[in-house]
Amino acid sequence: MLVQRIDRREWRAHEKLPSIRQLALEMKVHRLTVFKAFQMLKQQNKVYVKDKTGYYVQSGIAPSEFADEPLVNAYPRQNLLSALQSAVVDYHLTQALIDPSLLPNQYFSAYVKKVFDLYPKVLSTYAPVEGDSELRESLARYFARTCGTYVSSEQLLITTGAQQAIHLVAQSFLKPRDTVMLERPSYSAAIDTFRGQGAHIVTVDITESGYDMDAVEAAMRTYKPRLFYINPTFHNPTGAVVPASQRKRLVELADRYRCLIIEDDTYPDIYFGSKPVPPVYTFDTAESVIYIRSFCKYVSPGLRIAAMICPPALMSTLVTAKSLADNGSPLLNQKIFLHYFESERLQQHFDKLRIALQIRKEVMEEELSRTDWQWVSPGGGLNLWVQLPAGQDVSRLLAAALERSVAFVPGSYFDPDNRASTHIRLSYSYLNESRLREGIRRLVEAGNGNS
Amino acid sequence: MLVQRIDRREWRAHEKLPSIRQLALEMKVHRLTVFKAFQMLKQQNKVYVKDKTGYYVQSGIAPSEFADEPLVNAYPRQNLLSALQSAVVDYHLTQALIDPSLLPNQYFSAYVKKVFDLYPKVLSTYAPVEGDSELRESLARYFARTCGTYVSSEQLLITTGAQQAIHLVAQSFLKPRDTVMLERPSYSAAIDTFRGQGAHIVTVDITESGYDMDAVEAAMRTYKPRLFYINPTFHNPTGAVVPASQRKRLVELADRYRCLIIEDDTYPDIYFGSKPVPPVYTFDTAESVIYIRSFCKYVSPGLRIAAMICPPALMSTLVTAKSLADNGSPLLNQKIFLHYFESERLQQHFDKLRIALQIRKEVMEEELSRTDWQWVSPGGGLNLWVQLPAGQDVSRLLAAALERSVAFVPGSYFDPDNRASTHIRLSYSYLNESRLREGIRRLVEAGNGNS
Repeated sequence: MLVQRIDRREWRAHEKLPSIRQLALEMKVHRLTVFKAFQMLKQQNKVYVKDKTGYYVQSGIAPSEFADEPLVNAYPRQNLLSALQSAVVDYHLTQALIDPSLLPNQYFSAYVKKVFDLYPKVLSTYAPVEGDSELRESLARYFARTCGTYVSSEQLLITTGAQQAIHLVAQSFLKPRDTVMLERPSYSAAIDTFRGQGAHIVTVDITESGYDMDAVEAAMRTYKPRLFYINPTFHNPTGAVVPASQRKRLVELADRYRCLIIEDDTYPDIYFGSKPVPPVYTFDTAESVIYIRSFCKYVSPGLRIAAMICPPALMSTLVTAKSLADNGSPLLNQKIFLHYFESERLQQHFDKLRIALQIRKEVMEEELSRTDWQWVSPGGGLNLWVQLPAGQDVSRLLAAALERSVAFVPGSYFDPDNRASTHIRLSYSYLNESRLREGIRRLVEAGNGNS
Repeated sequence: MLVQRIDRREWRAHEKLPSIRQLALEMKVHRLTVFKAFQMLKQQNKVYVKDKTGYYVQSGIAPSEFADEPLVNAYPRQNLLSALQSAVVDYHLTQALIDPSLLPNQYFSAYVKKVFDLYPKVLSTYAPVEGDSELRESLARYFARTCGTYVSSEQLLITTGAQQAIHLVAQSFLKPRDTVMLERPSYSAAIDTFRGQGAHIVTVDITESGYDMDAVEAAMRTYKPRLFYINPTFHNPTGAVVPASQRKRLVELADRYRCLIIEDDTYPDIYFGSKPVPPVYTFDTAESVIYIRSFCKYVSPGLRIAAMICPPALMSTLVTAKSLADNGSPLLNQKIFLHYFESERLQQHFDKLRIALQIRKEVMEEELSRTDWQWVSPGGGLNLWVQLPAGQDVSRLLAAALERSVAFVPGSYFDPDNRASTHIRLSYSYLNESRLREGIRRLVEAGNGNS
């Protein structure tokens, strides 16, 4: 097969491989098979992707000389979602990102000028490892105002995106083979991060009505997980919101079983009806919750700013991990964000963004209503979690969709147990309405040819 | 002692502790003892530092409830240097950083405006995980031009500072208890990073004349280190430059013993006489070297941009680690750096910077020439590595210096074996000439009272 052909040097190092389409024809196999083979070869360092133009053969060192002694970490790392998102298609329903044209780009140039006027040496100084103190104070006031809970700026740690926050937690609090509890389904890059740290993973289901709290307690009692990573508000991918009563019981259980709760709160401002219930950390009285809030995603993803609220006793451990990870996030980005965050434009932007995203969600739902695919309409967030009807195979659907230049994320990517899934995640935030309609039409067509 | 007094709640949570001076008087101990006690308590999460105004008592969770089950990682992390650098003194000789007034701050505002004009959506898009492709291509051309070696932009990974690059390497290529080889002395935060990853550490000495290459070979043969982290050009802290013949033999040994060389090249542009020999990676023919180059330190530390040159076979492993660490460095920072990097100002800046730093080095040496302290005058870099005369105890000198509001870094911080040292590191890059003179005078005075 492809692997043998590469190993026997049918192509030279750094030579471009034929396209998926060509190879599928040539080898008389399905395109998805070729796509999967490429993914596997990429994982094994035998091929690499260049500027999204195609796959190239890696130079020979890894497979041969180092074959008996792999140079990689004990716990092989992967990032499945990021691999799929880099596929070259016209209609990406894989991106839980906001369409750049919905973001307040034109204002930022002015804020940046202001930042340079106010802090002429902003580029010649490091920020403190824990983050700029003005930004931390501003965020502390914001949390007090919006969540009604006192948070000291001393409990805040600024990170380069929520992904770094998750990574710092995994680095700081996990030994190999420690048990981590995850929702099922769960955010794919978080699964990869905890696995990459050598964690043993147990799961509890999350559905429209939240958790089965008795199952949560049983899992905590039985497996004594070190931490439970949750995304309880407009959950990715399901859109579920865990009700307040469960949030309260969850922090009680966390305290009783000494399980640290890692609350990843990504979409609280993207609601379509009423505001969601307050975050789990506001119910916490025993310092059992680390709260991760990504602000950038729907303001300026390019700035890469997120904040963590940490129990005081854990703060210095996380600050040390941050200092070893990158010595602090860039000061310029923190100052630019601060000035936008403090302006009135933020609220106006959110108001517009909620309307724009709700319309896109409705466009997607309208197109899907012509099928027998099923979903629970989410009250917020960026994704539909769609259950395919019996007879639709997700892998076959993905292959057929890729042929029509459409990509979506198979449900299995979000399953910490790696089980098959009859769900798929469709993000409605990245494409404009007409492209969204066209993307869904092509997807449905792929499904019709497939079932 | 202090610990017991905190444990029996003599001060409430978040209450400010008395100053080092007060406590030393009150408890009739030396100030350095109090300073060390504070450092230890900070390490144990019992106190924290707030806005450099003093030490505060942590709230009670860590010592009591979690006492039997520590929440921190199996391999306790620390960052000794960063703790000392946050000490509140007037004359910091601890900072191997460039004085911000020597940096080209005023130009950056214009570059930023240009970046926003050229890329209006720069803040609403993520950079590719491996880094902006324009910047990677620019750097590839730069390395070809300056080092005479072909480097593909596909081998370049952009990181948030050199610290992140070291961290990604440790994360990607080390299992707990793997052996890592370090120079002795070595960069303190690198020692902390490898230790934090659970590595077993072996050392080889680095001196004015480089390494004892037979000792390097013996260590590689005996301990089979996974990697050897080196800083061979204007080495921090010694200033040593490893000669070309040793560089050549080193890559041969690395290939033979399958030891990955991690070359951290921080100061190659800060030379006072002739340019240093080419980096170790340019001697490499077997893809055994990962090269880390931090550009920001002497241009715009606030941007936090460094680059790694990776053997192609290792690239995808490092890119995955980067994606899990923070999903890519901010695009804005990469674009700003790119535009300065491509401009003619960069070379002019370096020319001025070399002169300014050489003058500061000479000022420091002139002041020190009145003592019997000894050092080898470095050909570049930011530090003097000073050997104290017999009878000077480094800890006592630090205590006496702190009393005179001067801080320096004890040599033991750079010793991977944690042995006592009669050396200290004095950085001449951060203070202007008159403050440098005053700082050294006070230090020498502290030494005179001390010996």
